[in-house]
Amino acid sequence: MLALKEKISQEGCYLGRGILKVDSFINHQVDPALMEDCGKEFARIFADVNASRVLTAEISGIAPALMTARHLNVPVVYARKTKPITMPDTVYLTVAPSHTKGVMTDLIVSPEYLAHGERVLIIDDFLASGSTILALVRLAQAAGAQIVGIGALIEKSFEGGRKALEYLNVPIHSLVCIERMDDTGIYFGN
Amino acid sequence: MLALKEKISQEGCYLGRGILKVDSFINHQVDPALMEDCGKEFARIFADVNASRVLTAEISGIAPALMTARHLNVPVVYARKTKPITMPDTVYLTVAPSHTKGVMTDLIVSPEYLAHGERVLIIDDFLASGSTILALVRLAQAAGAQIVGIGALIEKSFEGGRKALEYLNVPIHSLVCIERMDDTGIYFGN
Repeated sequence: MLALKEKISQEGCYLGRGILKVDSFINHQVDPALMEDCGKEFARIFADVNASRVLTAEISGIAPALMTARHLNVPVVYARKTKPITMPDTVYLTVAPSHTKGVMTDLIVSPEYLAHGERVLIIDDFLASGSTILALVRLAQAAGAQIVGIGALIEKSFEGGRKALEYLNVPIHSLVCIERMDDTGIYFGN
Repeated sequence: MLALKEKISQEGCYLGRGILKVDSFINHQVDPALMEDCGKEFARIFADVNASRVLTAEISGIAPALMTARHLNVPVVYARKTKPITMPDTVYLTVAPSHTKGVMTDLIVSPEYLAHGERVLIIDDFLASGSTILALVRLAQAAGAQIVGIGALIEKSFEGGRKALEYLNVPIHSLVCIERMDDTGIYFGN
């Protein structure tokens, strides 16, 4: 997606160790018009998978997932990292490594909002090693829901996440694919 | 706002100790169409304050703030609860009590995205005691930004937050006001 690629070229910042800073339009400050365009594009790409729910992980998945769900006209559920007192006693919980914090974090979904038979489209900001998305897959599977597609704003293809998700045999789409990042620049693939 | 009031009547759940569970449409599962309508309504209400930025707190403020920013056509910044490694070393940080977790949490904004002279509209899910919104006010003031308005989806007027914010002398609007909650029901004000 050209608009996102241009934004990454202009404002994205490679910090070393595989980390791309996109805090000015996705992860801290958010560009709402760009997120809406991305949501619209995901809704177009996944129009045929008949998703009944979009699933993402707090925090930075919320903006693209919300916009996608808006255009697919389905609810979005974001997995929580801590269990608020409003959640029931028994929940689905799994763990995932946090890429930018270097620790394991919990991801928790209430059975109230993820049920057997749901058709789940996973949307997240990054597809890197795939570990966060795999955690969301486990939550959906624990609930007896079916994964019908996976979308990420930005794929870092050199981290191999797509390969880790292939066994699911569902469509996987990223809006922008980065093949390589180093001190000389950010290099996009197809 | 009628649609939000109806949703609260249908799906909101009073859990005792002043806590209203709205996990099915705001805080865990999100109703994107409803959030968009709320954002549109905030954009209408605050059309004249000339906000240059919407500010909110992760996590549950993100959906309404994003939709408001979308309709005002300005960026949205969400204060983070932990400092990711993508943030600069020096940041604005304040603390706020978490209503549903019973602990103090940090709220952090990078000086990159909140600067002197910005006109900040604060949008959050709840206006209760006002402590989270006051924390956002402190962050904006630390940055030398000006608060130009405060909006909340749901006000719990019995917790006195509006009074705590009055000294700011800016427009404060909630889309739905709850005057009282107990085992017999949720009672709305004007």
